Amino acid sequence: MKWPNHGGQPEEMQQLFGIEKDTQMLDFSANLNPIGPPDWVKEALNNHYHTITQYPDPTYSHTTTSLADYEGLDKDQVLLTNGGSEAIFLVAKYFENGKSMIVHPTFLEYERACHHYHIETEDVFYKAEEKFQLPLTCMLEKLPNTDVIFLCRPNNPTGTVIKEEDLRRLLEEGMKTGTTVVVDEAFVDFLPTTIPSLTKWLSIYPNLVLLRSLTKMYTIPGLRVGYMMAHKDMIKVLREEQIPWSVNSLVDAIVPRLLDDTRFVEKTRTWLNEQSKYMFEELTNLGYILSPSKVNFYLLQDKMQVETDELFRYLLNHGIVTRHTHNFKGLNGTFIRVAVRSKEENEQLLYVLKKWRNEG
Amino acid sequence: MKWPNHGGQPEEMQQLFGIEKDTQMLDFSANLNPIGPPDWVKEALNNHYHTITQYPDPTYSHTTTSLADYEGLDKDQVLLTNGGSEAIFLVAKYFENGKSMIVHPTFLEYERACHHYHIETEDVFYKAEEKFQLPLTCMLEKLPNTDVIFLCRPNNPTGTVIKEEDLRRLLEEGMKTGTTVVVDEAFVDFLPTTIPSLTKWLSIYPNLVLLRSLTKMYTIPGLRVGYMMAHKDMIKVLREEQIPWSVNSLVDAIVPRLLDDTRFVEKTRTWLNEQSKYMFEELTNLGYILSPSKVNFYLLQDKMQVETDELFRYLLNHGIVTRHTHNFKGLNGTFIRVAVRSKEENEQLLYVLKKWRNEG
Repeated sequence: MKWPNHGGQPEEMQQLFGIEKDTQMLDFSANLNPIGPPDWVKEALNNHYHTITQYPDPTYSHTTTSLADYEGLDKDQVLLTNGGSEAIFLVAKYFENGKSMIVHPTFLEYERACHHYHIETEDVFYKAEEKFQLPLTCMLEKLPNTDVIFLCRPNNPTGTVIKEEDLRRLLEEGMKTGTTVVVDEAFVDFLPTTIPSLTKWLSIYPNLVLLRSLTKMYTIPGLRVGYMMAHKDMIKVLREEQIPWSVNSLVDAIVPRLLDDTRFVEKTRTWLNEQSKYMFEELTNLGYILSPSKVNFYLLQDKMQVETDELFRYLLNHGIVTRHTHNFKGLNGTFIRVAVRSKEENEQLLYVLKKWRNEG
Repeated sequence: MKWPNHGGQPEEMQQLFGIEKDTQMLDFSANLNPIGPPDWVKEALNNHYHTITQYPDPTYSHTTTSLADYEGLDKDQVLLTNGGSEAIFLVAKYFENGKSMIVHPTFLEYERACHHYHIETEDVFYKAEEKFQLPLTCMLEKLPNTDVIFLCRPNNPTGTVIKEEDLRRLLEEGMKTGTTVVVDEAFVDFLPTTIPSLTKWLSIYPNLVLLRSLTKMYTIPGLRVGYMMAHKDMIKVLREEQIPWSVNSLVDAIVPRLLDDTRFVEKTRTWLNEQSKYMFEELTNLGYILSPSKVNFYLLQDKMQVETDELFRYLLNHGIVTRHTHNFKGLNGTFIRVAVRSKEENEQLLYVLKKWRNEG
């Protein structure tokens, strides 16, 4: 069987597994905020309809300025991209023909982008039995032979967060060995306020690159907006290499207002705090193994039964789509990835997982 | 002075040349259809607002199928792209580290994409004094040393159309020398029906690649939609190399309906036929030199006065933005590029060009 490469395609899963077309499915496979997008987005897009009849400003000046202001950076440290994906490919372009290190299991596109630009990849692994901690010692050993490290923090698909002290160590040693550390912060907005983004570190570590996505927090994956923050010399080079007009012209109407909408972020934090605590407790009590996630998704495994595929299919047959992990190196299908959703949807998931437990 | 890289940015030109901010400017610098987008597009986008809250289908199956049906091709011969630009970069990826030939003056992104993928570029030239005809003999000589030729037909910025017999010759010789011919048909929809697209040639010449844009005809440059048509083996390779979700999710609501809207295309042809004939006659009578364009834009030069920059500034000071040609190799600013606009706008342009003639 060919497992699909990404989550967020409940219809495709239905088709693959022969679920009847009209079955109502709950999508736990995409890591999106179930509260969003903010209410005002629809009207704002409608009011700025005319922007689609014009070429985007090639420098995306308005949006880039508001991102820089929001992050407390200079405009020349920020590059707007077509989702986080374009940012990943662009940073790979910078290290073309070099050597990279990727810590798996993690987002698949780091490896794809490296192959696209002929970057040799060295794989190291977070291990479930070590609570998915960064394999720091092994990484430090390989550092002199590494041009760039791709990290995801919080990590997709584990939801775990690399410790600040480990990162500092990597960045400091990296400055000696000429190694750049790329940290994909696509899910950083879902972290509790006690774990801040690394934006402020950019002024300390010239070898740090941060990638961001506006897709997840604001539930606008269809609009494709992300950005990169890095030393201005790197941004300048990559701006020259970027495909022109790669971001659509509607973003100017949306992004500055999204960054201002602190109430929406508050509301999201309240929901997530409540629901993630609740789900982790209930699922642990039911005897499921979970990754120690800090965000809006987690890995799940049933310690009473070996076959995760069977659980995956059982959930699917009960109207719940999760994300298989067959194409995540270091997981190979031993877990499923599950999103934290609304209270009602989470209850439904719990109901089915209890049923599975009782029938197992 | 630093001339901007692209047209379609009237505000930037205003700023650069110190024109007062509130001056009403007519934009003759972008090659867009002044009639579009079709009336129904706004409502369709609004009705499909929910699609922005979902990841696009990674294979863009719905839109790709409708494009294939429209073109009479198989689905595996078509790749949806983020505007024509992503198509250009993807095809360059295919010929990475190879050797290309580019016929200038032409769209700037062929060269940029070649540099991005370390393709050596050989420049050949259309010459104004030869009515911008393809330098076929010189090209055939260089063919054995060329992996890929980038052509634009109709050509931007000249509006001229390479003769079918010249193209056939290139494709046939190219089959012997292992040379692929990429024809960017971004403006093909503006050609009279007597000059069809080359889509049907794809079944004859496996070394032909066609690039398309939906931006120009339908006036939706802000949405970023284009596509590539080629042999299925090349499409398969490039699909694997494409940045995931590079096209936004609104296209499914729009593209299939655009392809069905033959009435809109008819309306556009009627306008263009009338206005381009009128403008070419009037401008020729006024003694201006024009490229023998077949589409909705043309190169213009004043044969009575040498300085095109002066004319460019004069037009700007009279509220008309045209496209300078300083960054087109082989033109270097000796012409300006002018779009065919609505009757009222064209009259205004004529009025100012008459005034310039009388004051000159």
